[in-house]
Amino acid sequence: MKIDIYATQNGVQEKELKDRTVVVVDVFRATTTIITALHNGCKEVIPVADIEEAIAFSRNYDKNTFLLGGERNIHKIDGFDLSNSPSEYTRQAVEGRIILMTTTNGTKAVKKTHEAKEVLIAGFVNVDAVASYLAQQSEDIAFVCAGTDGKFSLEDILAVGAVLSRLKNRGKEIALDDLGFVCVHMFEMYKNDIKSVLGETSHCRRLINEELENDIDVCLDVDSIPVVPVYKDGVIRINAKAN
Amino acid sequence: MKIDIYATQNGVQEKELKDRTVVVVDVFRATTTIITALHNGCKEVIPVADIEEAIAFSRNYDKNTFLLGGERNIHKIDGFDLSNSPSEYTRQAVEGRIILMTTTNGTKAVKKTHEAKEVLIAGFVNVDAVASYLAQQSEDIAFVCAGTDGKFSLEDILAVGAVLSRLKNRGKEIALDDLGFVCVHMFEMYKNDIKSVLGETSHCRRLINEELENDIDVCLDVDSIPVVPVYKDGVIRINAKAN
Repeated sequence: MKIDIYATQNGVQEKELKDRTVVVVDVFRATTTIITALHNGCKEVIPVADIEEAIAFSRNYDKNTFLLGGERNIHKIDGFDLSNSPSEYTRQAVEGRIILMTTTNGTKAVKKTHEAKEVLIAGFVNVDAVASYLAQQSEDIAFVCAGTDGKFSLEDILAVGAVLSRLKNRGKEIALDDLGFVCVHMFEMYKNDIKSVLGETSHCRRLINEELENDIDVCLDVDSIPVVPVYKDGVIRINAKAN
Repeated sequence: MKIDIYATQNGVQEKELKDRTVVVVDVFRATTTIITALHNGCKEVIPVADIEEAIAFSRNYDKNTFLLGGERNIHKIDGFDLSNSPSEYTRQAVEGRIILMTTTNGTKAVKKTHEAKEVLIAGFVNVDAVASYLAQQSEDIAFVCAGTDGKFSLEDILAVGAVLSRLKNRGKEIALDDLGFVCVHMFEMYKNDIKSVLGETSHCRRLINEELENDIDVCLDVDSIPVVPVYKDGVIRINAKAN
């Protein structure tokens, strides 16, 4: 099983992902939020490219069936129902609803995979569920990390390392590219100390400065949400096959 | 001193490098070859985007004043004088000559910096010379790794880590981005074992398969060539200020 890792969503071309099995990772916070929302009974998450598209898209739905979620510069978007904080996506808030979601990096990463064969949504919260799903197949895999504003983000790299380590522990033979080697190495080195090693990164510091430290804890809570969301035909759902 | 690292030349936009101090790294083999050529008395290296541009550009020069160098798919280009192997760039071959050079990744990385304030050419062979030069200044720095065909290359990451470690050892206060943290970590972990850790990477395997293992040894010979080439106005020369 050959594994390719892309460190940022803008470092990968859509054609590179065509017909492949792809795992999208944006630990802080889009993929964690999507996983949380679906686990809490949200019907589906529809990633949209920008605010205007979200609002235009929402006109297709009855008022009480959908919520607008996402962020720009970490903050909730004016007129939206929810920000990009997973703790807002409670069962009470999202059960039975469709979420139209747009974030700076994560939803862009998901949308880049629209020509892929199969797309899984991953974070630390569902590492083992994703590894378990991938271990049952033999196809090559591409991991697309969202990154942060076009730059390499350590939290995504560590989460990919976590999934790859679990795959190896399950006896899966995997052929890593150079970045995959780095992901596994960094995760194995820091797996008991993830929050501290991330504490000095710019992304964590921004979240802490915005009083969102609780989101960091939620996003780093390994295996807390054992589901595998799947993106297909423009929509993310919990797929019966995957769970 | 704030440090930004870009893992691949196609992951960075020219405007991101505008008016900055930039260090370009392509260990296997373009920057190592450029450093070797200049150290062996080549007058200047002119990076060009493609084969056609190299040939067109060469019409500006008298026949005995220039050499065409570079590679496509690791191999020497038809009609060119030299490949991208540093061992071909001997004093006998290059002294007094201008080299017009085009490679798959490295020369593209150099050309991306054309709006930068200052551009240094680095590899393992001149780590200390580059660190020494950078330690004398206080400006923020961007490192641009060539990468390999759009992908993250471990040898470039380790070389950047080597320069950053030397800067830290010289007491320089540096603020690293996430990838910079990874570069330093990986270099510190593997500094006594660089060839072994790179041995399994796809880039090294390709070079070994093409019977170019000697190039690997030359490219990993830390501090063997204590010069700092500078790219300015389209031309790479050894700059008096830098050496």
